[in-house]
Order: sequence, then structure tokens, then C-alpha cells
Amino acid sequence: MDIAILGTGPVGTTLAAGLSAAGHRVAVGTRDPTATRARTEPGPFGTPPFSAFLDAHPSVCLCTFAEAAAGAEVVVNATTGHVSLEVLALAGPENLEGKVLLDVSNPLDFSRGMPPTLTVCNDDSLGEQIQRAFPGARVVKALNTVTAGLMTAPRALADGDHTLFLCGDDPAAKATVRRILQEDLGWLDVLDLGGISMARGTEMYLPLWVRLFGALGTPMFSVKVVR
Amino acid sequence: MDIAILGTGPVGTTLAAGLSAAGHRVAVGTRDPTATRARTEPGPFGTPPFSAFLDAHPSVCLCTFAEAAAGAEVVVNATTGHVSLEVLALAGPENLEGKVLLDVSNPLDFSRGMPPTLTVCNDDSLGEQIQRAFPGARVVKALNTVTAGLMTAPRALADGDHTLFLCGDDPAAKATVRRILQEDLGWLDVLDLGGISMARGTEMYLPLWVRLFGALGTPMFSVKVVR
Repeated sequence: MDIAILGTGPVGTTLAAGLSAAGHRVAVGTRDPTATRARTEPGPFGTPPFSAFLDAHPSVCLCTFAEAAAGAEVVVNATTGHVSLEVLALAGPENLEGKVLLDVSNPLDFSRGMPPTLTVCNDDSLGEQIQRAFPGARVVKALNTVTAGLMTAPRALADGDHTLFLCGDDPAAKATVRRILQEDLGWLDVLDLGGISMARGTEMYLPLWVRLFGALGTPMFSVKVVR
Repeated sequence: MDIAILGTGPVGTTLAAGLSAAGHRVAVGTRDPTATRARTEPGPFGTPPFSAFLDAHPSVCLCTFAEAAAGAEVVVNATTGHVSLEVLALAGPENLEGKVLLDVSNPLDFSRGMPPTLTVCNDDSLGEQIQRAFPGARVVKALNTVTAGLMTAPRALADGDHTLFLCGDDPAAKATVRRILQEDLGWLDVLDLGGISMARGTEMYLPLWVRLFGALGTPMFSVKVVR
């Protein structure tokens, strides 16, 4: 499939590498491709500059948000939550129309110190805000409950014996995402929670996630729903 | 130990039975013991009236919130979140002074329909509200992430291979609660998240919990933190 990844951070590069390795044609969207390509300083988490990623993954192309989305069947929102709506607007509603929009983002607010709070929660969620803002897109929320390193390598932890959540209003879009998660990325336990409003549940798990990160001293953990 | 359980709902009766069976002297506190004892209708979840519980557990005594707390070393808040602060005030700050206060409650708001929202979240929690309102109590939040039936029988699910969270500001109080959880109730994996503000994390897990309940069709599930 043609897959667009919006965002060049650790989540975007990890998903671009993983989905490219699985045989998909991947275009990574960024605000200004020339500027992104010219950057030589490391990323915010000490990751190599994006040009090094491109050199190592010659089949992945870098273009604008709109160009990436225009050519894709599946668009992945891998941006940080506070810019997601703006970035999707730059991608263009016309380029999202009818597309599967896999939303990996979390509405984390670091402006009030650590641990972060959420910019939206309780009676709304970022997943729902995105679905409302782009009604033509078929939003599926998934992968937002694990660190980037586990998204594409779930078996790196307990041989994959942990759970990923999925929700969205469109059954066919969820089936597409489930196939990607299970067949391309190797997830064994993908639990469908229901419609996109269920994103309130998975996004509100993040305050527990960041505290577990603090208590465990590593982001390489996940939860298994034991039932 | 002398343990007071505040609340006569499914959580209160389950904990009273479990802690009594473990050899503790248990007093259950209620608003009006005479009225509670006289009730003949089933509880809100179809549970037997409290008098039937008392008949089956003759060593458990029923008294007022204040009487129960006054005689206890450990006080358990097993009330629904929206009355917890009021009930603890009825128990009396003087009867909570220096005591371990195990807070099992969740700030669930059912008034806006299902699934419930939270009355407090994101930048505060019910656990913290309780600690602030009763600074002399040594509040420990735990057991609020599982259904009553699992609190005292964790091995009923996957032979106990799942995780319980614990947080609070007082290390000795946490050690007391950890002993109760592990030695009396049989929990195998008790994860200390840190101070009482970590209750924001475990309480904000509830919106995911209620959605998992909906998706799985049973409350007999739990999460294992895989690390």
C-alpha cells in the first residue's frame, strides 16, 4: 500500500522504517522538506537528524504533508498532539477524504511541567477532535499506548504477549489497520474497543503510562489485558 | 489488626469478608447502622441486603463511620467517589489522625450517562483531595483498578499474573498496605508508583477500564504491566 507518515520525530521514523520494511511504499510528510533534509542537529530525543534516516532508508521519500497524504491510501498521524489538527489541515481535507487515518498521537501538554497533563480528556479526546475536524477521513486510533520502539517490534517485549487497543467508527478502516498491526508489525493481541469516542479511554491511559515510565525507568513496557 | 471498612456496597462487603477471613478484626462503618441492618431489598448491583452479609459473617461488626474509624489502625475508604469526602468527614478527622487510610474509591460521575466521566482528573485526583482534606491521615491509593471480586481473589484470574498499583506519600503506610495486599489478599505483583499525586494515573485509567468492561462483557479482567 501507499502509506503517508505525517511527522519526522521518533514515532514517524520508527513507523516509516517498519512499514517500509514490511513492503509498503512510504512517504514521510513534513512542513518544509528542504529544511528537514538540511537539518544536521540531532532530534529532541537525541535521535540522528532526519537526513541520516533518509540515507539509511532510500526507498522512503520525504515531501510536504499535502504531497504525502495526496498519494496515500493510509495516512498516519505521527505528530505530537498539540500540532496534530494544524498538520492535518496542512495535509488538506481533500487529501484525507475517504482515507484511513491512523491516529497515533496523544494530547500531551508539557507546558505545565512533568509529568505532562492532557490538553483534552474526560468528555472528549484528540481522536474525536480529529474525526470531527475531518469528517471525510476514516479515523482509527491505535499505537498511542506504547513507546515508538515497541510499535513496530512488539515481540521485543515478552515475545509480544501484551495488548494493543484500537478504536474507530469505520469497521473497514479498522480491519485495514488491524491487518497492518498484525501482519506487518507483528502484534498478537489487538483489542477493538469500539467507536472513536473510545479514544478517551486510551488517551486517558497516558497519565498512567508516563507514571509507569517514571517508576520503571524505561519506556520499554506495555500492558497485557488479562481476561 | 483492627480494620475499618467505610461503605457497605460490593467493595465494602468483599473487602470486609476477605480481610476478616485473613484474621483481621473488621468493623464496617455506615451512615445509620440500624437502617442498614433493617434493609431487606437487594443492593444496587443485585447483591443480597447487608443483613444477610452480617448473618454470614458474624465476626464482622456494623457501626457508624466514626465508631468504625475510632477503633481501627487501618481505615479503608470503600465508598463511591462522589460521597467519599463527606463520609470521611463523618468518620471524623480525629479518628483518621495518624491512621493508614487505604483509598479504594474512584471519582466516577454517572450523572451524564454511560460510560461515566470523572469528577476530578488531569491536574488533581480524588486521592489527593482526600489527602489534602485529612492531612493527618496517611493516604494510600490502591485496589481502585480492579473489580471487587478480584480485590480479594487476584488468583481467580490467570493465577494472579496481573498487576496492582499503589501510591501514597508515607512509606510506612505503603508498607502496611503492601503487606495486606500480598500476605492477606494474595496479590503477587504490587507496583509502587510513588507519591499520592500518582493517583491521577490510576484514577485516569478508569475510563479505559469501563470501556474494557464494555468490550469484554465482564469485569473479571485486569492489566499486567509487562516489563
